[in-house]
Amino acid sequence: MTPTPPATPTARIPDLTISEVRLTPILVADPPLLNTQGVHQPYTPRLIIEVVTAGGVTGLGETYGDTKYLELARPLAAKLEGRAANDLNALFALADEVAVDPAQVENALDVGGQRGVQTADKLRLSILSGFEVACLDAWGKAVGMPVHALLGGKVRDRVEYSAYLFYRWAEHPGGAGEPDDWDAALDPAGVVAQAERFARDYGFGSFKLKGGVFEPDQEIAAIRALAERFPGRPLRLDPNGAWSVETSLKVAGALRDVLEYLEDPTTGTEGMAQVAAAAGVPLATNMCVTTFGEIREAFTRDAVQVVLSDHHYWGGLRNTRDLAAICRAFGVGLSMHSNTHLGISLAAMTHVAATVANLDYACDSHYPWQTEDVVTERLTFRDGHLDVSDAPGLGVELDRAELAALHQRWLDDDGTLRDRDDTAAMRVVEPDWVTPSVPRW
Amino acid sequence: MTPTPPATPTARIPDLTISEVRLTPILVADPPLLNTQGVHQPYTPRLIIEVVTAGGVTGLGETYGDTKYLELARPLAAKLEGRAANDLNALFALADEVAVDPAQVENALDVGGQRGVQTADKLRLSILSGFEVACLDAWGKAVGMPVHALLGGKVRDRVEYSAYLFYRWAEHPGGAGEPDDWDAALDPAGVVAQAERFARDYGFGSFKLKGGVFEPDQEIAAIRALAERFPGRPLRLDPNGAWSVETSLKVAGALRDVLEYLEDPTTGTEGMAQVAAAAGVPLATNMCVTTFGEIREAFTRDAVQVVLSDHHYWGGLRNTRDLAAICRAFGVGLSMHSNTHLGISLAAMTHVAATVANLDYACDSHYPWQTEDVVTERLTFRDGHLDVSDAPGLGVELDRAELAALHQRWLDDDGTLRDRDDTAAMRVVEPDWVTPSVPRW
Repeated sequence: MTPTPPATPTARIPDLTISEVRLTPILVADPPLLNTQGVHQPYTPRLIIEVVTAGGVTGLGETYGDTKYLELARPLAAKLEGRAANDLNALFALADEVAVDPAQVENALDVGGQRGVQTADKLRLSILSGFEVACLDAWGKAVGMPVHALLGGKVRDRVEYSAYLFYRWAEHPGGAGEPDDWDAALDPAGVVAQAERFARDYGFGSFKLKGGVFEPDQEIAAIRALAERFPGRPLRLDPNGAWSVETSLKVAGALRDVLEYLEDPTTGTEGMAQVAAAAGVPLATNMCVTTFGEIREAFTRDAVQVVLSDHHYWGGLRNTRDLAAICRAFGVGLSMHSNTHLGISLAAMTHVAATVANLDYACDSHYPWQTEDVVTERLTFRDGHLDVSDAPGLGVELDRAELAALHQRWLDDDGTLRDRDDTAAMRVVEPDWVTPSVPRW
Repeated sequence: MTPTPPATPTARIPDLTISEVRLTPILVADPPLLNTQGVHQPYTPRLIIEVVTAGGVTGLGETYGDTKYLELARPLAAKLEGRAANDLNALFALADEVAVDPAQVENALDVGGQRGVQTADKLRLSILSGFEVACLDAWGKAVGMPVHALLGGKVRDRVEYSAYLFYRWAEHPGGAGEPDDWDAALDPAGVVAQAERFARDYGFGSFKLKGGVFEPDQEIAAIRALAERFPGRPLRLDPNGAWSVETSLKVAGALRDVLEYLEDPTTGTEGMAQVAAAAGVPLATNMCVTTFGEIREAFTRDAVQVVLSDHHYWGGLRNTRDLAAICRAFGVGLSMHSNTHLGISLAAMTHVAATVANLDYACDSHYPWQTEDVVTERLTFRDGHLDVSDAPGLGVELDRAELAALHQRWLDDDGTLRDRDDTAAMRVVEPDWVTPSVPRW
């Protein structure tokens, strides 16, 4: 036996009690990216969350900023005050105490229709995801540990991302919003040119095309053009549920030799299961399975082969790890997704992605399309990867001047842009445009 | 906007690099508890693990101590040195680097036959569970946080346990081992008397009987006697897979009005599924589903309704939380189990149990049967519960004198007790005894 070691030296951790939660809604520039619902508006709402502890640490979080999220975030933020920033398992019970206005969820679509039908649970989890990330950032900063270490440590030093290709216009109608230097992409040649720039500027090795915009034959042609230009590279197509089972199978048949996976070709577990049974290509989803309650049926029916976890959907980084464990046990693939977000959320998803052994595919992120940010130093893709930060917390700092400017834009808005509405944005150009019913083709 | 807060005050954490891992095999007294394999030996092996960090913190862990575990623990311990105590996600890949002698797993049963067929994976995970707990204890001590806080915080202040009733003799053959003051329990009256003492001394509100020892009719009578003496209390019966499907359904039919659940009435997913379909009472398991690889088939076939997670089986506290997440998503109940363990493991399971919202049943523990311990202060059940410690780490300290004495007992043993063998122990009394084949009835 070795002798007793000296008395345990324990660190003095700054008090993690949450003394203040600051909520700052902002509007950030968004390019005219097309999807099956319509087009992105010139500005999109986000909510920046600061969790301030009694020990003087401030943690950062980010989530959706539409009015219905804000209305829920405010009472939830009040409930956070006085709790410990690392008391995370109890967050979910807390959220159940905050009522959701049924009018906000009945028959509503969410995130521009990209996230399936709205539910009170989805709203709550999206808010909680922002709070949870801010709490982890605060906890990490207080103990001098990166967020990935609080999640049990990284298993990789960098995380691979995929290029997220969009059909798009060169500019918003009437030149609204902030201009960028991207060309229009409305046909196979335009999509290939966009992919070339993504490959050149960021080194992305795989490509996802947001589809559901044009007739399936045209989108098949775009993927074929990508396959010809980038032979052997993983390709993905995501029409956001715009197709019937029959159309889905037709597209799968035409592209199965070049697709890494087909994402949400049709809506609903039943339809996805029918497509999966005959597609000959894995089906990925961030619409069919977006909550824990949807897993059982989809997994037992083998309706999906890859879940694109989005920590905003699932309620944070720790829930994302729970989802990863479920996918691992069921032999279902895992990747990650995040739409129209800034550097805080990109850092957060990179931390959790670094900790998950069974991250089977390069992650999706809209980030290259977002030219504005609230972090002092934007994250940089190199060779299609992001390095995992080992700095305390998330490893990003808030640019308060930029935050103030983007918040001022939100304050100045007359209300038309505070709630994302891709259909309304399309109506500016096509006055008769309504949300297409699915299946569209 | 509020002004920028002052520079983030970060704690100085003692260096978490593992400088030494100490492995101390011990033999602890174990009463003559009967099960379908035979009887517990007078002493049972355990392994006490100390993870010492460069920063001067020592974390404690505990797991199985049989020779095959020790042989695997030694090379794994060597791999731990130089790594960070909080680098836990990478532990599992590390274990894969250590080969398991096929002779140790082929056709072998484990934990006295209570854990199903041995596999290399199960061996590795049991070792890792001890290391992981020791690492969490070290990490918690270093930052002044209880283990439950490192797991995201407790959602309850105390954890409920169930009385673990055994058929038993008054003493080991020839008075071997350490005497205790319990009477024999070999019939319904003896079982009820044992339950009464458990209720009186510890306040346990629910009762589990280890069955598979006598003819099913006698065990039905014991449960009936308990139901009569403790009307309305949750009762459980666990024959460790000793019964055929037919016998299982007969017992279920006779007891379904009083059983909270029936545990492992028969072996294998196929048999459990058949019983589950007609039993009319939930089936629990720590034999049919003991690894992540077994979940998919069992859950999709609805073969089990309650998983008794044992952190030694599943690879630690964080894997136990993963399992809890899977159970939550699939609507499968969760409880916890641990056999023949000391205070370190009891503290560990109590910490993780405190963090899991969907802990649906009182946990099982053999702890009241273990009169020896290596912690300075034994954990105390009050009203059938254990309080969750908020002290740094696990909240237990090593009694080095006791550890040394129990290690000396292991050193002095001629090898006959270093590997648990309930069949051999029974053979002392019944020379013709062999491991019963299943189904026994």
